[in-house]
Amino acid sequence: MSVITLTTDFSTQDWFVGTMKGVILGIAPKASPVDITHAIAQGDIRGGAFALMAATPYFPKGTIHVAVIDPGVGSERRALAIKTDRAIFIGPDNGVLCWALREQKIRSVREITNEAFFHHPVSRTFHGRDIFAPTAAHLAAGRKFSQVGSEVKDWAPLPWPEIQKSKNRLTGEILYIDHFGNAITNLSADLLPESAWKAASVSIKRRKLGAPQSNYASVKPGKPLAIISSSGFLEIAVRNGSAASLLKLKVGDAVTVSVPRLEG
Amino acid sequence: MSVITLTTDFSTQDWFVGTMKGVILGIAPKASPVDITHAIAQGDIRGGAFALMAATPYFPKGTIHVAVIDPGVGSERRALAIKTDRAIFIGPDNGVLCWALREQKIRSVREITNEAFFHHPVSRTFHGRDIFAPTAAHLAAGRKFSQVGSEVKDWAPLPWPEIQKSKNRLTGEILYIDHFGNAITNLSADLLPESAWKAASVSIKRRKLGAPQSNYASVKPGKPLAIISSSGFLEIAVRNGSAASLLKLKVGDAVTVSVPRLEG
Amino acid sequence: MSVITLTTDFSTQDWFVGTMKGVILGIAPKASPVDITHAIAQGDIRGGAFALMAATPYFPKGTIHVAVIDPGVGSERRALAIKTDRAIFIGPDNGVLCWALREQKIRSVREITNEAFFHHPVSRTFHGRDIFAPTAAHLAAGRKFSQVGSEVKDWAPLPWPEIQKSKNRLTGEILYIDHFGNAITNLSADLLPESAWKAASVSIKRRKLGAPQSNYASVKPGKPLAIISSSGFLEIAVRNGSAASLLKLKVGDAVTVSVPRLEG
Repeated sequence: MSVITLTTDFSTQDWFVGTMKGVILGIAPKASPVDITHAIAQGDIRGGAFALMAATPYFPKGTIHVAVIDPGVGSERRALAIKTDRAIFIGPDNGVLCWALREQKIRSVREITNEAFFHHPVSRTFHGRDIFAPTAAHLAAGRKFSQVGSEVKDWAPLPWPEIQKSKNRLTGEILYIDHFGNAITNLSADLLPESAWKAASVSIKRRKLGAPQSNYASVKPGKPLAIISSSGFLEIAVRNGSAASLLKLKVGDAVTVSVPRLEG
Repeated sequence: MSVITLTTDFSTQDWFVGTMKGVILGIAPKASPVDITHAIAQGDIRGGAFALMAATPYFPKGTIHVAVIDPGVGSERRALAIKTDRAIFIGPDNGVLCWALREQKIRSVREITNEAFFHHPVSRTFHGRDIFAPTAAHLAAGRKFSQVGSEVKDWAPLPWPEIQKSKNRLTGEILYIDHFGNAITNLSADLLPESAWKAASVSIKRRKLGAPQSNYASVKPGKPLAIISSSGFLEIAVRNGSAASLLKLKVGDAVTVSVPRLEG
Repeated sequence: MSVITLTTDFSTQDWFVGTMKGVILGIAPKASPVDITHAIAQGDIRGGAFALMAATPYFPKGTIHVAVIDPGVGSERRALAIKTDRAIFIGPDNGVLCWALREQKIRSVREITNEAFFHHPVSRTFHGRDIFAPTAAHLAAGRKFSQVGSEVKDWAPLPWPEIQKSKNRLTGEILYIDHFGNAITNLSADLLPESAWKAASVSIKRRKLGAPQSNYASVKPGKPLAIISSSGFLEIAVRNGSAASLLKLKVGDAVTVSVPRLEG
């Protein structure tokens, strides 16, 4: 049995996600399709890349992850299959798979070209159903990874937003805003030792939030706080509320961490 | 193992869909329930019929499809089970199953009356949970199709909206608007040979869109286009946008295809 | 194979629910995770408790129900596992599990403390992924219930809203408003014999709705009615409409049932 995860911007309003699962179960009846999310904003490659990165460490070894945020569907962009030490990733060559690979060892990257793995006829607008899902299913059913197509040596990157470091300051940015309105940044918990986080002061839009709290209940309801999120990144939140609304946050806004102990 | 698909207007906000799956897994522990959609507008039989039709070709042979768009629940409307060469369809006798049958050979149509297949007590307002899901599950668990009830020879039709054809023109209408705002028509790709589509001009609300494009990226972002959708029907779309919003489209709006080459 | 249900306020917009399923399938590959709902309002313990209560009777014996409406995550609130004659319930000790236990016989209540069952590192903000889901999965995989932690004798209650009874009147309140706008009350069908319901008159906000109807189609479209809902409670509904909108209903509003035959 293989787990096949699905991350898309299709929403679950129509039949699109259901047909991907139908194609999968027709090829690999014992596969377990699992939704990560289908609510990525239309064409938001970074949002999809972040969700995939946040979810993949929690799936069993051997999971096949399919991500279809694919604004270039039908154009010349390639389809990729990437094998790592822990998983297989399948999706368009537009960067959506990149961030999930950050903590994994890449074994092989191939362009998906084997039409024997496709669902025919192949439409021009729904490669999730006709190329990505059936290729994942054939791999789940035991076909060799090397059969998907030829190895490629380069692929579209998705640069991790740069973190500026000075002697006593880290500056990052908001990468993802979740359903609760929590604003998750690109500042990973492991950038600083725990003692430095405890002495740190987090600022967003000239608002000082002090050191990251250990839980949301550390501040009064309606008040903002910094916290290390469950996905391991610094997050700006509001207890029982939405940081995005209260502080008018959006993806790309700068977040600063001042760490006096690193001085001198 | 059988796949049982679910198409409803229940939304996933409450426990309704979950209880249908609970009933199914209690009767047929090895069945795989798969959501097609639960976001059909309340009581929208045509929307449900279209989603079911669009999804069913992608499921494996032997799949059992349950569709519960059921504004007449608790009234005298019958419950139907329909066996075709490829699948079994289960739902109220109000037309919701009809369009999915268009490309399939009907083998047997029966009224669901066998109370041994029901979940008791049978409520008056939730036959999805108490009649349709458990009947599907008993069939998935191996009970004979003939046991669901007696054969019927007539059932509620859902007429496919008429297509007007003249020497050089097809006129159809918008049947379904998806989550992206794409407007899908009743004009099937196979109404014209591919060469005729290439020479065609699609019009909607006096706006000429030219021939169907081969992918969304063929026009500039924000611009409308005609395209053959992934479900095989002519679709009005906007690249990176919503055709329904931009062109103020709604279900029932006329769409015209002019084909000069068919003239004279 | 065990069914593991999930009831949360996480929404399905982000990766949170998907990661819970990833953790479950990593520990118990043959478990079947089933969503009850993830659309409980943030921190709404009563809403979660009602949804869980409404869904649990329809799942097979041995099902493990995980409910994570957990505004106190990271604080001192305990994590509970409760075994009954029919199922296992897992969630925070804040009352969210209580109403589902009303019709079941409790066999054992334990505090979840066995870190061997957790996903490490345990975050401070996502116990659904790190404590509740993996504990459920270990039980599904065959570990003994007694291993989760020590027995406890007291836990946080969630009082069922009181029903006032007089000689000819029952007064209850609205407990849950569903996606259709139906307002479900705490007045269970079995409070009165069927004959008394037939003679009853239901009032909400000074509006008299008469006796509960047997189906929604008993009144004209757009008109309000009382009905015994599919979950077994008195419900205020509007045919083809939203009672919550039309009658401006909210959770906590009083509902009165007058029963003349009980007089004298």
